[in-house]
Amino acid sequence: MPIQWNLSASEIEQKSFRIIEEEVKNTPLAMLPNPAWKIARRLIHTTADLHIADTLTFSCSPIQAGIDALMQARPIFCDSKMIRSGLSLQKLQTINPLYSEKHILCSISDSDVIQRAKQENRTRAICAVEKNKDKLNNAIILIGNAPLALAKICQYVLEEQVKPALIIGMPVGFVNVVEAKELLTSCAVPYISLLGRRGGSALAVTTLHAIMENILEK
Amino acid sequence: MPIQWNLSASEIEQKSFRIIEEEVKNTPLAMLPNPAWKIARRLIHTTADLHIADTLTFSCSPIQAGIDALMQARPIFCDSKMIRSGLSLQKLQTINPLYSEKHILCSISDSDVIQRAKQENRTRAICAVEKNKDKLNNAIILIGNAPLALAKICQYVLEEQVKPALIIGMPVGFVNVVEAKELLTSCAVPYISLLGRRGGSALAVTTLHAIMENILEK
Repeated sequence: MPIQWNLSASEIEQKSFRIIEEEVKNTPLAMLPNPAWKIARRLIHTTADLHIADTLTFSCSPIQAGIDALMQARPIFCDSKMIRSGLSLQKLQTINPLYSEKHILCSISDSDVIQRAKQENRTRAICAVEKNKDKLNNAIILIGNAPLALAKICQYVLEEQVKPALIIGMPVGFVNVVEAKELLTSCAVPYISLLGRRGGSALAVTTLHAIMENILEK
Repeated sequence: MPIQWNLSASEIEQKSFRIIEEEVKNTPLAMLPNPAWKIARRLIHTTADLHIADTLTFSCSPIQAGIDALMQARPIFCDSKMIRSGLSLQKLQTINPLYSEKHILCSISDSDVIQRAKQENRTRAICAVEKNKDKLNNAIILIGNAPLALAKICQYVLEEQVKPALIIGMPVGFVNVVEAKELLTSCAVPYISLLGRRGGSALAVTTLHAIMENILEK
């Protein structure tokens, strides 16, 4: 097929969604209720992998919890700079004009975090969680990279009664990732996860954007 | 397996690489020469998908071209803010201390680009390429999102003798993506691509980081 030069971004998105819907129509994904399907569709759209959403897991009404938290302009903690730069502040502000850069908590490159991780020979991701511990209650948590950041947050939930509004737990990789997600499944808080090794910053971001769609398209 | 809390970032990386090597040892990927294998390994590490590198394609000695361009502190054009924030300026500066934020060209959120895309009902990604046209000669190009950005650059190469130092062509998605990558394969410039629909900002970034490894580990 020749390149279709004259499509706008929204036309490309709509066309992509139609292709995805056509290609998954005979799979279990097609049975998802609409708000969950919006997330699965965006995960597929972001990766072009028709199987990426096969292990998508929801617990404790996380979509509604996310909608409520966004409408109250709750802070958003993220474990990577890629998540921070991928998040649409414009969309956040459409949902609640109070949202500003300050609401997006990302300490992974703070000099004190870098120094502490080096001194203690631990990961920057854990130190960044520890630095923000007192801001995690009622926050939206986006983990797309670091399993130990997710594990640390689960520890706070399980042992110290920290209660995030929503955890999007999608770290990626071969070490500690499956284990951190298993720990998440024992937490009685709203969460959305991709069980197994798969995940990524783009996937965590797109999941929150899909939740926003549920507000913006109403 | 319990969470392994006391691993440093580099220990986690080395352990992940050993797992990946073990799991692909009887596949064609294991036959790749070392500099190419470093890229395949990082693509797998970034996605936790053992098949992500199956369509990895190299043309015109792109790894050496990338090394040369990095050592000369050539500018790096990227099509998304996620790529810009994922790129390690620190690693770039280790290779050539001349590297600064100014060398990373990303116009996707410039107000003139946004305005022009809206007026002309085209994508911001194409308008961002057009804005930087005179900076693409000898530049390193990273495309991890927008197929039309890649297609536009290919058009400049094929029709206007623009000569990037290296194109990392990894847009992702269902519309124009396969076609843009096919156009790339007709360009006689150094490129690295993932043929098919798969790609992403994290994949484009990690490919450049893998090329840097070839310099930093010497």
